[in-house]
Amino acid sequence: MPPNSVRVTCTAPVNIAVVKYWGKRDETLILPTNSSLSGTIDKGSMQSKTTITASQSLAHDEMFLNDKPVKLENDKRIYTVVKQLRARAQDVKDSNGRVVLRKEEWGTFKLSIVSHNNFPTAAGLASSASGLACLTSALAALFNAKEKFTGEFSMIARQGSGSACRSLFGGFVKWNMGTKADGSDSMAVQVAPASHWPDMRVLILVCGAGPKKVPSTRGMAQTVATSDLLNYRLSHVVPKRMQLMEQAILDKDFPTFGDLTMKDSNQFHAVCLDTAPPIFYMNESSKRIVNLVHAYNDMVGSISAAYTFDAGPNAVIYVPEKHMNALLGLALHYFSPIHHKGHANAQDFMLDKMNLTKLRPASYESAVNAAHVKQFGDRVTADSGVHQIIVSKLGAGPEITEKATSFGGASKM
Amino acid sequence: MPPNSVRVTCTAPVNIAVVKYWGKRDETLILPTNSSLSGTIDKGSMQSKTTITASQSLAHDEMFLNDKPVKLENDKRIYTVVKQLRARAQDVKDSNGRVVLRKEEWGTFKLSIVSHNNFPTAAGLASSASGLACLTSALAALFNAKEKFTGEFSMIARQGSGSACRSLFGGFVKWNMGTKADGSDSMAVQVAPASHWPDMRVLILVCGAGPKKVPSTRGMAQTVATSDLLNYRLSHVVPKRMQLMEQAILDKDFPTFGDLTMKDSNQFHAVCLDTAPPIFYMNESSKRIVNLVHAYNDMVGSISAAYTFDAGPNAVIYVPEKHMNALLGLALHYFSPIHHKGHANAQDFMLDKMNLTKLRPASYESAVNAAHVKQFGDRVTADSGVHQIIVSKLGAGPEITEKATSFGGASKM
Repeated sequence: MPPNSVRVTCTAPVNIAVVKYWGKRDETLILPTNSSLSGTIDKGSMQSKTTITASQSLAHDEMFLNDKPVKLENDKRIYTVVKQLRARAQDVKDSNGRVVLRKEEWGTFKLSIVSHNNFPTAAGLASSASGLACLTSALAALFNAKEKFTGEFSMIARQGSGSACRSLFGGFVKWNMGTKADGSDSMAVQVAPASHWPDMRVLILVCGAGPKKVPSTRGMAQTVATSDLLNYRLSHVVPKRMQLMEQAILDKDFPTFGDLTMKDSNQFHAVCLDTAPPIFYMNESSKRIVNLVHAYNDMVGSISAAYTFDAGPNAVIYVPEKHMNALLGLALHYFSPIHHKGHANAQDFMLDKMNLTKLRPASYESAVNAAHVKQFGDRVTADSGVHQIIVSKLGAGPEITEKATSFGGASKM
Repeated sequence: MPPNSVRVTCTAPVNIAVVKYWGKRDETLILPTNSSLSGTIDKGSMQSKTTITASQSLAHDEMFLNDKPVKLENDKRIYTVVKQLRARAQDVKDSNGRVVLRKEEWGTFKLSIVSHNNFPTAAGLASSASGLACLTSALAALFNAKEKFTGEFSMIARQGSGSACRSLFGGFVKWNMGTKADGSDSMAVQVAPASHWPDMRVLILVCGAGPKKVPSTRGMAQTVATSDLLNYRLSHVVPKRMQLMEQAILDKDFPTFGDLTMKDSNQFHAVCLDTAPPIFYMNESSKRIVNLVHAYNDMVGSISAAYTFDAGPNAVIYVPEKHMNALLGLALHYFSPIHHKGHANAQDFMLDKMNLTKLRPASYESAVNAAHVKQFGDRVTADSGVHQIIVSKLGAGPEITEKATSFGGASKM
C-alpha cells in the first residue's frame, strides 16, 4: 500500500551572471542567443525554499509562492517543469532499499507546492532563477528521478526560467547556448566549485527604488527585435569573452575577471539602451556605485572590485576578501543612511550573515580615511539611495533538506 | 593709408545632430569616424555672437569669451582657425570698389576677438559648435576671404571644433566624414534649407543639473579606444542611417525622420555606456522625457515627436508644429516647476522667443486633458528636474550683422 504522502523540502541559490544572458532564440524552449556565465551566491545570504507534498488526498495540483496562490495551469513555464519531472517519476524506496511507492502509483498523487524567497523585502533581486532551480530539484527528489545524462535537469530548469539552469550548480557555472533546435545541447555546466576561489566575496548594494522596470522576458524580446548592436555582441563579443572569462576563473586572475565582468555588465545595459523604445535599468545610485568602484580600482592601481547589474538598479560587486573591508567602508560612507542619519542602525542596514565578526565597525571605519574621502570627493556624490547592503560569498547548488514519507499519521524515511 | 581699424560682428547658430558625431580618427585635424547630420537651430532662440576688431594699435591678438580672457596661443584649435583665415586675407574694398586696405598691410594688424553665447545660463548646451562657426565666419568677413571651393570654410571651422562645420549652414546639414588623411574631403554641406520643412519645430527641455559630465573630446577618445560596439555602429549602422535620414528629410517624412533620430540618440548613449569606464550623459529627467515622447507617440498612433540627447542630459525634441501644443502642454504638466509650484512663473520658465502668442496657456492647458494624464500616469512620473523650456524652430547659418572700417575717428563702409 502506498504512503499517504511524500514530502520534500529543497533550498536553491541565486546566481549573478558575469557574462550576461540577454536574448532568446526560442521563447517556448527558452533557448538563448548567447552563452552566459555566473557565480552562485551562498544560500546563507539569499535562497529560495520549496516544500512539495505529494498526496492522494489532494483534488488537484496547487502552488503557493510567497503565500500567494499560483494558477499552475496558466503558468506554462512552471507547469512544463512539473510535467517533465512527473514523467520521469521512479519507484521510491525506504532506507532499507524496499520499494514503498511504485512508479505506476504516482498517477494517483497530486502536488502541493509551497515556495518562499527569503530575500530582503526591498531587494527586488531576481528570484525566478533560484525559484525554478528549487522547484526542479525538489521535484526530482520527490519523484526519485535520475538524470540520464549530466545536465538533463538543468535543461528542465531552463524551460522554467532561462537562468535557473545555472542555479543548479555551485561556484562558477556556464550555460552553453547550444545550437540544436530542440535545445538538447543548451544546458549549464559547472566551471569551478566555490572552493576553487575561496577568497571571492560578493557585496550586494540594494538600490531598487526607481521607476517600474521592464520585465526581462519582454525586454529581451524587444532587444532581439530592434537592437542593431546586439547582433555584434552575439557574433563577435560574447564568444571570445566566454573563453577569456572561463580562463580568468580557472587562473583566479581577478583583474581580468573584474575587467570582463564590468565590461559585460555595461554592454548588456548598452544593448538595452539601443533597444526601441530604450530600456533603462540602472538609476542614479547605480551610476554612483559604478563611479565608486572605478575610483577605488584607480586608487589601488589594479582592478580589485567589479560591479555587475542585472535587469534592475541593484549592484552586485565581486571583490576579493582582502579588499572587502575597504570597499564596504567606502560604500557605507557614501551610500548608507547610517552616514546620513548617524550610526545607530548599522546592524539593520547591513545584512551580513556570513562574517559580521570580521567586519566590525572599527575596521570599515578605519578604511574610510581622509585620503579616500578626498580622492573620491569629486567623483562620488554621497547618497542614501542604497537601502541595504548584503555581504556574501560564493556557495553550493540546491540542497534537499528534508524528505519524508508518511504512512497514516507517522513519517519516516 | 590703411584704416585705423576694421570691425566685424557675426552671429552663428547652434546645431543639434540627428545622426550623432562620436569619435575622431584624427585628433589634430578633427576628422570623424563617421558622417553625421544635424538641424540648425534658429538664432532667435540661441546664438553665439562674435565681434572682431583688427587694429594696428593692438600689441598682440587677444580674445574674450563670455567676458573671460582666453589665451589664444594655448588654445591650439582656436588659433588654427585664426591662422588659417589670416593666411587667406584679401584686399578690403569700400562700397565704391576702391581698395582701402591691401592684403599686404594685414600683417601689421592684431585682433581683438570678443565672443558671447546668449544661451540661458542654466542650459549647459554645447556652445563650441556655434562659437567656432561664428569665429570662422567673422574672420572670413574681416579678412574678406573667399572660399576657393564650397565647404572650404566649413573645413576650417571643423578644425576648431568638429561639429562647428555643420553650424556654417542653415536647415539640415550633413558632415561627410571623408576618407583622405589630410581631411580635404571632410566638410559639411547643406541637405535642405530651413524653408524646405517649414512646420518643423524644436522643443528644448533643459535638465542639466546632475553629476559632472565627461567632456566630449575625452569621452570620444575613450569610446574609440574601448568600445567594441562602436565598430559595428561605424561600419554597419551609420552609413545606412545617413542615407535613410537624408531621404526622410527630402521627403519630409516625419515618422521615419523621428524613428531614426531617436534610435541614433539611443545608440550614441549605448556606445558611451559600452565605453570603459562607462560614460553616462542622460539623467533621470532625461529618461522621463524619453518615456513621455514614446507615450505620446503611442497615443497618437504614429511617431509625431522625436527626442535626441547630446553629451549631456538636456532633451531636444523635433516635433511638427501641429503636435507642438500638445507636447508642450504635457511637458509643462509633468516636468515644470509651474506644475509643482503654481502657475505664477510660466513666462519665466518657458523661453519662447518665436511664437509665444500661438502658445497661450489656454491652448497648452487644454492639451492636458484628463485622458492624457490618465494614459501617461503609469509611464511618466511628475518631476521638476526640467529647469527651463525653449521653443524654437530651424533657422539659417551665420550672419554678418556689422562691418565697419574706421579711419581716424570716423567709421564707414
